Amino acid sequence: MAVYTDVTDEDLAAFLADYDLGEPLSLAGIAEGIENSNFHLLTERGSFILTLYEKRVQPSDLPFFLSLMSGLADQGQPCPRPVPRLDGQTLSQLNGRPAAVISFLPGLWPRRATPEHCGEVGQALAALHGAAGDLGLHRENDLSLSGWHRLAADLGVGADLIRPGLQADIASWLDRLEARWPRDLPTGVIHADLFPDNVFFRGSKLSGVIDFYFACTDLLAYDIAICLNAWCFEPDNSFNITKARRLLSGYQKIRPLEPAEMDALPLLATGAALRFLLTRAYDWINTPEDAFVTPKDPLEYLTKVQFHQAAQGPGAYGLDRPD
Amino acid sequence: MAVYTDVTDEDLAAFLADYDLGEPLSLAGIAEGIENSNFHLLTERGSFILTLYEKRVQPSDLPFFLSLMSGLADQGQPCPRPVPRLDGQTLSQLNGRPAAVISFLPGLWPRRATPEHCGEVGQALAALHGAAGDLGLHRENDLSLSGWHRLAADLGVGADLIRPGLQADIASWLDRLEARWPRDLPTGVIHADLFPDNVFFRGSKLSGVIDFYFACTDLLAYDIAICLNAWCFEPDNSFNITKARRLLSGYQKIRPLEPAEMDALPLLATGAALRFLLTRAYDWINTPEDAFVTPKDPLEYLTKVQFHQAAQGPGAYGLDRPD
Repeated sequence: MAVYTDVTDEDLAAFLADYDLGEPLSLAGIAEGIENSNFHLLTERGSFILTLYEKRVQPSDLPFFLSLMSGLADQGQPCPRPVPRLDGQTLSQLNGRPAAVISFLPGLWPRRATPEHCGEVGQALAALHGAAGDLGLHRENDLSLSGWHRLAADLGVGADLIRPGLQADIASWLDRLEARWPRDLPTGVIHADLFPDNVFFRGSKLSGVIDFYFACTDLLAYDIAICLNAWCFEPDNSFNITKARRLLSGYQKIRPLEPAEMDALPLLATGAALRFLLTRAYDWINTPEDAFVTPKDPLEYLTKVQFHQAAQGPGAYGLDRPD
Repeated sequence: MAVYTDVTDEDLAAFLADYDLGEPLSLAGIAEGIENSNFHLLTERGSFILTLYEKRVQPSDLPFFLSLMSGLADQGQPCPRPVPRLDGQTLSQLNGRPAAVISFLPGLWPRRATPEHCGEVGQALAALHGAAGDLGLHRENDLSLSGWHRLAADLGVGADLIRPGLQADIASWLDRLEARWPRDLPTGVIHADLFPDNVFFRGSKLSGVIDFYFACTDLLAYDIAICLNAWCFEPDNSFNITKARRLLSGYQKIRPLEPAEMDALPLLATGAALRFLLTRAYDWINTPEDAFVTPKDPLEYLTKVQFHQAAQGPGAYGLDRPD
């Protein structure tokens, strides 16, 4: 569940006095999400999400996240819009934690992604990249190569508790990625966590993209690589090339990939799979047994790393690379 | 948290095909509540609560609960109204579980109850008793005396893990209650779980009463005794007689208590405190360490049992008994 901090009616009334949202009508904790405490807030002005930022989010990063959402919403992207207080600030405080109110986006996230969903996601991702590029925002990706080295060091021999030999495998994957990681591909602000539970649909049409709290500046094609991992594997961990082809062709309707980006896809997808393997392994080992949140199985991403390692080129993802 | 069963978008679409609720726009698991899986469901027709009934609810009791809510709502009581399917049924099925859609009630539950809240609760409880009395519904209370004996037997020496000597204390309290429990007080359908998180307010006005899944036929004054336990103790377990007086005078604005009901209050309140001590003790001992739900501390109710045992008469609750 995702309510780490309760909010009393008195606390809420005092908090909302700084906003032009009218009287609070309802506040219900939302069970989904694992990083922050999220509430569905209904006021006389409508439906909103109230988020209290918990310890995993750096307070110094919050202005970036909120400016990004505001900027994307201003450009018509289907993102939640932070609601400003009467003094114009979007970042506030509640129960001693940084907090914000953002607009509520309707839509359902797909539990079973279809090729149609994947096409929509590719297109929306390219549109986000385009819109975010105009905002002049920057945040280092603390979960890129150097962050993976740090996570691997924190895991240490603990990795072998998940699968014997995993520590050595991770070290060799990191060496290979370090040696070949591309430095000169198109860069910009990426979502970096565009999993199905962060994308809403109405019927087969994409209606919203949420959860920008991993957004950062990095290679645009790396964001695509994350989506290939998040959207294109079946529950049995087999890769669905039809979904990948739809995702990539959706993306290229808005921004055609450069040949160098296409060539880098297997390497970027390996890195993306390793990134989620590492954070899941870390959570797996460090989550107390009585925690509210059930950690996700890291081994799912081990299979994905192996798939991308074996990929011979962009054709493995259904891409026809122009010569 | 309280989402034991996930609902996919396809499952939801198939389920809603039996209703006249339009297209689903959003579905979010609700973190509050521990008995069932609850979702906030937004459709083209408005806001609803979707409940999947989990194992603690007897499926054979569901028609009673749903008829009660429908009947109370028909009489203007501030209760959620079960939404009928196209075939007129309010009980449906989803993911192999009994399920129902009920109307969404706005309002916030008070984290810190005030005397004003208590007055409103007393009045609402009496109104519910009056309205429910006209419905001709009946359900045995499986958490009355015989149920407490059963729970105590299930607990066995486990009670002494909570506090040494508790098993013997429970046995002696049960003997005393069994010998004196009143049989001829006014009876009807009671809520039986009217805790603050089941009562919504807008400002200081009561706006909704929810969670009828413990409702049953029993002594009306026993429902008041439950509320005295639920609303009138401070966080340090001291009894606030001002809150009790307001709760009882609120109730009596609608239905004056008979002298025999007043005299029975200390005994009924002891029974009510013992009922929550027993179920909490049972959950405390039987909840696995990795469960989603953190069990509530049973010892809070030990203090309450002791308070009511020592109460000399209705004056302990601020009641002036007429001679």
